[in-house]
Amino acid sequence: MGCAPMGHVLYDEAMRYNPKNPFWFNRDRFVLSAGHGCMLQYALLHLAGYDSVKQEDLKEFRQWGSRTPGHPENFETPGIEVTTGPLGQGIANAVGLALAEKHLAARFNKPDNEIIDHYTYVILGDGCQMEGIANEACSLAGHWGLGKLIAFYDDNHISIDGNTEIAFTESVDSRFEGLGWHVIWVKNGNNGYDDIRAAIKEAKAVKDRPTLIKVTTTIGYGSPNKANSYSVHGSALGAKEVDATRQNLGWPYEPFHVPEDVKKHWSRHIPEGAALEAEWNAKFAEYEKKYKEEAAELKSIINGELPAGWEKALPTYTPESPADATRNLSQQNLNALAKVLPGLLGGSADLASSNMTLLKMSGDFQKDTPSERNVRFGVREHGMGAICNGIALHSPGLIPYCATFFVFTDYMRGAIRLSALSEAGVIYVMTHDSIGLGEDGPTHQPVEHLASFRAMPNILMLRPADGNETAGAYKVAVVNRKRPSILALSRQKLPQLPGTSIEGVEKGGYTISDNSTGNKPDVILIGTGSELEIAAKAADDLRKEGKAVRVVSLVSWELFDEQSEAYKESVLPAAVSARVSIEAGSTFGWEKIVGAKGKAIGIDRFGASAPAGKIYKEFGITKEAVVAAAKELI
Amino acid sequence: MGCAPMGHVLYDEAMRYNPKNPFWFNRDRFVLSAGHGCMLQYALLHLAGYDSVKQEDLKEFRQWGSRTPGHPENFETPGIEVTTGPLGQGIANAVGLALAEKHLAARFNKPDNEIIDHYTYVILGDGCQMEGIANEACSLAGHWGLGKLIAFYDDNHISIDGNTEIAFTESVDSRFEGLGWHVIWVKNGNNGYDDIRAAIKEAKAVKDRPTLIKVTTTIGYGSPNKANSYSVHGSALGAKEVDATRQNLGWPYEPFHVPEDVKKHWSRHIPEGAALEAEWNAKFAEYEKKYKEEAAELKSIINGELPAGWEKALPTYTPESPADATRNLSQQNLNALAKVLPGLLGGSADLASSNMTLLKMSGDFQKDTPSERNVRFGVREHGMGAICNGIALHSPGLIPYCATFFVFTDYMRGAIRLSALSEAGVIYVMTHDSIGLGEDGPTHQPVEHLASFRAMPNILMLRPADGNETAGAYKVAVVNRKRPSILALSRQKLPQLPGTSIEGVEKGGYTISDNSTGNKPDVILIGTGSELEIAAKAADDLRKEGKAVRVVSLVSWELFDEQSEAYKESVLPAAVSARVSIEAGSTFGWEKIVGAKGKAIGIDRFGASAPAGKIYKEFGITKEAVVAAAKELI
Repeated sequence: MGCAPMGHVLYDEAMRYNPKNPFWFNRDRFVLSAGHGCMLQYALLHLAGYDSVKQEDLKEFRQWGSRTPGHPENFETPGIEVTTGPLGQGIANAVGLALAEKHLAARFNKPDNEIIDHYTYVILGDGCQMEGIANEACSLAGHWGLGKLIAFYDDNHISIDGNTEIAFTESVDSRFEGLGWHVIWVKNGNNGYDDIRAAIKEAKAVKDRPTLIKVTTTIGYGSPNKANSYSVHGSALGAKEVDATRQNLGWPYEPFHVPEDVKKHWSRHIPEGAALEAEWNAKFAEYEKKYKEEAAELKSIINGELPAGWEKALPTYTPESPADATRNLSQQNLNALAKVLPGLLGGSADLASSNMTLLKMSGDFQKDTPSERNVRFGVREHGMGAICNGIALHSPGLIPYCATFFVFTDYMRGAIRLSALSEAGVIYVMTHDSIGLGEDGPTHQPVEHLASFRAMPNILMLRPADGNETAGAYKVAVVNRKRPSILALSRQKLPQLPGTSIEGVEKGGYTISDNSTGNKPDVILIGTGSELEIAAKAADDLRKEGKAVRVVSLVSWELFDEQSEAYKESVLPAAVSARVSIEAGSTFGWEKIVGAKGKAIGIDRFGASAPAGKIYKEFGITKEAVVAAAKELI
Repeated sequence: MGCAPMGHVLYDEAMRYNPKNPFWFNRDRFVLSAGHGCMLQYALLHLAGYDSVKQEDLKEFRQWGSRTPGHPENFETPGIEVTTGPLGQGIANAVGLALAEKHLAARFNKPDNEIIDHYTYVILGDGCQMEGIANEACSLAGHWGLGKLIAFYDDNHISIDGNTEIAFTESVDSRFEGLGWHVIWVKNGNNGYDDIRAAIKEAKAVKDRPTLIKVTTTIGYGSPNKANSYSVHGSALGAKEVDATRQNLGWPYEPFHVPEDVKKHWSRHIPEGAALEAEWNAKFAEYEKKYKEEAAELKSIINGELPAGWEKALPTYTPESPADATRNLSQQNLNALAKVLPGLLGGSADLASSNMTLLKMSGDFQKDTPSERNVRFGVREHGMGAICNGIALHSPGLIPYCATFFVFTDYMRGAIRLSALSEAGVIYVMTHDSIGLGEDGPTHQPVEHLASFRAMPNILMLRPADGNETAGAYKVAVVNRKRPSILALSRQKLPQLPGTSIEGVEKGGYTISDNSTGNKPDVILIGTGSELEIAAKAADDLRKEGKAVRVVSLVSWELFDEQSEAYKESVLPAAVSARVSIEAGSTFGWEKIVGAKGKAIGIDRFGASAPAGKIYKEFGITKEAVVAAAKELI
């Protein structure tokens, strides 16, 4: 209730939106980073005339199948831009939304037609301010000079455990000034409407820096007994206190009742919103007439349609192509795709030269060069992921990618999970994907990470083995705009294997070589990524001894699961229980593939610092181990 | 090489340590947060006379089995306090080390005998500074007034991707002043030895705040062609440039050769260190004479021996005990254990009242009340985990616990993995462990988290079902001082089940009820945590229909895996393929337990916002589903 004045001024006065088309491209974006206060946003959407939140939806708050869940979900409720709740994510998403606006404006605006021109507003609380991800993202927002990002900091001194004095006594103002923000303090946020208006005006006038408006409020303002208390943080007031609050505020109406004069006051947003969009549509028509090519490109970003034939840009490889690390092959794909996908942009968390993510055609997205497409995130993995979620959810045609070492997905898992939940099709380019990275040792060597993402809903975990599979992984990642993809890529050189293909990757699992007949191999060897080569070599040896051996690449378990039973049977016939898998990662989950009688070769301990070849040998991730296991099973 | 002067002044002048006993309790702690520069620390340990880094160890840098791995590992090299490498962790660990010192000093020091009195020094770089975890931990350090924490910020303007100008232009000084730190700037870090000495002196004089000493340096200082370049960040100079650097610095000696005068200069640290420890031992003897009780308690913290009979404090329950949420039962355990384990301390990331982690016997650890044992971490999960790692690695007898909602392990996974890798026996109290938390919805409902930790090496994932199992989980967690534990606990009430036991939990998996004979049940029902109740009820129904049903609690897969084959066969006989598991989480990995013919009931999508009962029903996590699955298999 302390945030109500900010919310009111934003939705009733400051923001430009069209309630009847929540997806109007040039709308101002609003993010409630303090997502637990979502009832306020639902109420504002309702008052503003959004069809997604009717009176009956408000009554269904936090109920099964309702459009008013316990935290705001963009995929449930049009008008909600991003899913929030996990603290700190929303402000970082907002940095992504503001980045997208700045980038697109720089690319497409013309001196006579500023077709892209909107603000990004946020409300965040003390909880968000304490989270490291918020500091990461806000440091970047300051660095990039995102002048159209305006964040309200609801400074109510209360978090769940009580007064923020117990754990949060830093000077947020000094910190944000250090981060390069413009800071304004509204001392009476409970009813200082004019101060809030003036602050927004001032924020808009500061064009080279984002603005933090610190609004000092009382949590549960209006509640005579529970205001300024942590007991209202995540809990309802209770019927008795609601009554007392109504009386205190002089509010005589029934629950959920919107008085006629209030309705009348807010009703103007429907025609005004329609007019705003119509005006913009006319502006776009002008733009299209004058700047045909740019308009077509912008349209594809607005509607998310991939250009016809884009996939022809994907590089192809033959077994004769030179051996290479899949991280390098990934860069070939990124650079090829950037030419045909106008919405592709991204970068790395200070590892561009290791992750191989630079687009050679482009410069750096920076404060003064915002039309460029290489984004430098610094060593800020969590912020990077959440910023990419914001970019992805800004426009259907924006395809953000971001990169670090695979092991550091641990730093950004909160954001990755939100990509999956909120249907943000971010491409995660994760290199150095196993003990194969060698000398950097166990802190840098992922072990359990493949399993941990295979267990996560709505995300594609892809581990390509060579050039064709890397191209296939990119094809899958680009097509899946509502499902993020993680590409696990090698640091070390890998050969181009006979039998790999883009089409195979699209099926998740497929046979790359087989000398059996009648779908009855003596043994099936299954590998992923850098270990597919080992499986293939083991097969060669076994075949020399007269065995019928099939080699299967299981590049994406999720995609394979989605295939028909007949197809799956054609790759992994139920009757063949002699199965050996090899993957330089945890064997957890592999039982499902190799069965109780099969053998999973992997690593179920932490790695070690040494040259890669030595580590593989010491941990028994070798051709010899595969051959021996296969012979035991045949 | 830019850090060499700081390192030199620290190890040769400022720090008190005993090279021949790296574990001397009152030593100053040093953390190289910028862990990639570990060769400097190895060289300093070698010069100082530590047996863990001999000349031959230096030659084995980054080789298999060496004590000089690619990043510093506390479990490989005595003298290394904490494992670093993943950026930002080290500075947060250092906050934990300094917290431990401040807490223990407040508890045990006497006006006439300040038995605990050491500093914690850190070197961190630009990479650490960008990480959100560092800001979280440093905000707490400022809040707690950790005056004996002295951090050197190696301000070399270079990170892997090049000049920090591309992504890091904030004012670190302003930010740290905002965080409540004392900030000193040493402008010439390359050879300003006196300035560094003066800064340390000044830092020590500021007792109510931690100090950041910003030391402006040149990366690769001394290298004529590669100094001040990102190319020296993670890579070796190369033989030619090493030669040029030697010439430039006027260093005529062979590689790894330590000249006699240098040896002689450093040789004093062995007798001086021995004297420091002897002096302290004498002081401790005095202390012991005068303060017998305190000395005994402190000794147990120093040597990590658990008090005899401590486990008798664990509460016990009968089926008649009232139903309760395991988060509440967890609080009963924590409060019971705090009385018998002097080293137990911890808290929550602003969810103490939800996680139920407050110790009722204690007040809050705060700047002016540091002897208290309830730690208020604020909404800083990642920082919290890393601080607890620091506490755990300060003294063998300190047992830190920390808490948040289970889903937010995603925010702190980087720190949790380091607990597992660096053998820090932190207890992670993770409540609201499934869709059973209800209305908060999918952002707050863990799904894949159990699987993700079961796949992680050297960590115990425990999901107790009731009071006895919660007590068992705590017993396991306390005993395992070199292996962290995660306790997944329910928000919702659960009954006390017949057949559960502490001893059962210690085996990881065990039978809680069975009406079969000869180890041949018709079906085995397997559950964990809140779903064990459902399995038990389904068994009741099936038994009424004459079936022989065994119910197994699989509370910790890791512990069960470690049991003898005979024991495992006695619980899950190979001959019984009719197995049904039920767990409100991803079914990923369960194939190993239920086999190809069994059935795993779980949830392989994101949850939803609604009352818990409704969600269980809609997702089919019900007794009826278990009964139906069992009947199909029998």
